[in-house]
Amino acid sequence: MAYHIAVLAGDGIGTEVMPEGVRALEAAARRFNIDIELTHFDFACCDYYLEHGKMLPDDWRDMLIDFDAIYYGAIGWPEKVPDHISLWGSLLKFRREFDQYVNLRPCRLLPGIKSPLAGRVPGDIDFYVVRENTEGEYSSVGGTMFEGTEREVVIQETVMTRHGVDRVLKYAFELAQTRPRRKLTSATKSNGIAITMPWWDKRVAEMAEQYPEVSVDKFHIDILTANFVMHPDWFDVVVASNLFGDILSDLGPACTGTIGVAPSANINPEGKFPSLFEPVHGSAPDIAGKGIANPIGQIWSGAMMLEHLGHKDAGDAILAAIETVLEEADSSILTPDVGGHGNTASLGQAISERI
Amino acid sequence: MAYHIAVLAGDGIGTEVMPEGVRALEAAARRFNIDIELTHFDFACCDYYLEHGKMLPDDWRDMLIDFDAIYYGAIGWPEKVPDHISLWGSLLKFRREFDQYVNLRPCRLLPGIKSPLAGRVPGDIDFYVVRENTEGEYSSVGGTMFEGTEREVVIQETVMTRHGVDRVLKYAFELAQTRPRRKLTSATKSNGIAITMPWWDKRVAEMAEQYPEVSVDKFHIDILTANFVMHPDWFDVVVASNLFGDILSDLGPACTGTIGVAPSANINPEGKFPSLFEPVHGSAPDIAGKGIANPIGQIWSGAMMLEHLGHKDAGDAILAAIETVLEEADSSILTPDVGGHGNTASLGQAISERI
Ligand SMILES: CC(C)[C@H](C(=O)O)[C@@H](O)C(=O)O
Ligand SMILES: CC(C)[C@H](C(=O)O)[C@@H](O)C(=O)O
Repeated sequence: MAYHIAVLAGDGIGTEVMPEGVRALEAAARRFNIDIELTHFDFACCDYYLEHGKMLPDDWRDMLIDFDAIYYGAIGWPEKVPDHISLWGSLLKFRREFDQYVNLRPCRLLPGIKSPLAGRVPGDIDFYVVRENTEGEYSSVGGTMFEGTEREVVIQETVMTRHGVDRVLKYAFELAQTRPRRKLTSATKSNGIAITMPWWDKRVAEMAEQYPEVSVDKFHIDILTANFVMHPDWFDVVVASNLFGDILSDLGPACTGTIGVAPSANINPEGKFPSLFEPVHGSAPDIAGKGIANPIGQIWSGAMMLEHLGHKDAGDAILAAIETVLEEADSSILTPDVGGHGNTASLGQAISERI
Repeated sequence: MAYHIAVLAGDGIGTEVMPEGVRALEAAARRFNIDIELTHFDFACCDYYLEHGKMLPDDWRDMLIDFDAIYYGAIGWPEKVPDHISLWGSLLKFRREFDQYVNLRPCRLLPGIKSPLAGRVPGDIDFYVVRENTEGEYSSVGGTMFEGTEREVVIQETVMTRHGVDRVLKYAFELAQTRPRRKLTSATKSNGIAITMPWWDKRVAEMAEQYPEVSVDKFHIDILTANFVMHPDWFDVVVASNLFGDILSDLGPACTGTIGVAPSANINPEGKFPSLFEPVHGSAPDIAGKGIANPIGQIWSGAMMLEHLGHKDAGDAILAAIETVLEEADSSILTPDVGGHGNTASLGQAISERI
């Protein structure tokens, strides 16, 4: 039985790294005898918007819902379409309508990648950020009063539900339980954000009772970002609201030097809807068209996709190939962001061959 | 004519670093012939709450309003009083009721302090975070529906006003104008927080027209935190909403290794109400009572206070004394957090003598 995977390359460097992502995926599928079938779509990008006045066709839901997973590039090109339109019209819509309520992002110091933090070596930093991915601060509820006048007031509501928070906490606790250190850190701001966040803390405390083997701590988001820099070795699984998770899952990879290569999984754990796998990096209009974007984020996202589909061995093999190539490849193969003078294709090809 | 300064030591290590803050202040006042009169108050701390059931006396406003400035220690002791009660009952109340709408925090790499970032030396990192300090995400508007049930929904509103945003932007642009690089960075999240933040961007763009000499850029908060780690040298003046500013002004000092020693000014620029000066660090119950807290944050806050009162020379002298002591003092004087085995008093005294 084949896995059906929808491929959406998106904008900018998304279209450049996706071919390498596909190449690695196919290499792993061959090696592990996994039957995958890829279907490419041209929507969910700014050029589609410019032509059709919308990011997605009206029947996008029907077109995508039966796929086993969505493999996504990067989205956004502010000069063509304002970000809040392109994102809310595609990525954020998928996350919400396909109820991909977990955003999972590994923060892992890889060999051969220079961390901006002093004295850290591979093994020192290896944690996950589990981000709530459908509600919270990313609401579209609110509006403006006295618009355009001196009295202008703009309001936006953060909306959290017990349903929404408990299920992502549950996912995070269960992930923590599978890890050697069994440690969970909750990101809060209950000293300042005085309605939602004290309540978030209570949900964490209540859930913790069901997982006595997991040791739990919490930090306010301000000092938590500081601790990512000062003590990244403290963390194992970090669970956070939509906005806090967004911040932490850029900062974490930055601390490991991998902001350009980190992957991300938008997961509907029950498998009722397809999950979506994408690199953390954006579409990078500044380097788009040059063919020098690092494809590792896309490839690593493919590894997470295979793991999600039940093929952990294949996912692990991809990650191992990435690590080996980073360690051993000479600079003619590596992309400029990791100190080389190769390009997207040379690095992608080296990894695929390794797989 | 004397400056009248209200002294509130607060909780935990606040009570330990404040005497050193006062000592340094008095040393600078003597040297520069500034007449200051200090008045100590026992409220705005958790012990006061335990005794009186509130953080402040009912007439706190009348008691404090005529002071030229408030010199504050650190507040909070979660085991005695939940943070959201102690903070909203004191610090956050001052900020709001005394309309201290600018929170100004320097991020500066000091000699003798180890940055967690690789290869950075003093001079590399030297910027300010200007944080909106009265509105935004720190609202107390919202509530809970279906409380305690499976259907529980918790809502909290972010409230931004043109009045509130424009005035802090103005402050930030004017600060940028006084700096050699004349650079302003705005923290946004208009791709996700789709109502308030696109509007924030518009206010920044409109204000920028009035300051053509200032070069302006913006980053989404997620990648901005990453850039603090990867490229701290990019920044000069960073302006942000209440929550984003809170995060950036912990992360910035963390990147300079000074999270325990950074100062902060809560300013009412018009001088209609007293401004408040406090270290960035909290009350640190874990090390309270040991006499080993680093007093530099408190002392440096005093320097900002003197500068605010019009005595930049005195403020500069305090900062210079801090830098010299950090560079020259031996480890018997320095506190453990900066690699010494001295204590609060030894370090405070060394700085005061230097002044
Ligand atoms: C203690 C807390 C409420 C406060 C804030 O978030 O404003 C603190 O973190 C700060 O930055 O001064
Ligand atoms: C592009 C943006 C809307 C998105 C987000 O904030 O969720 C991105 O930063 C991410 O983390 O996937």
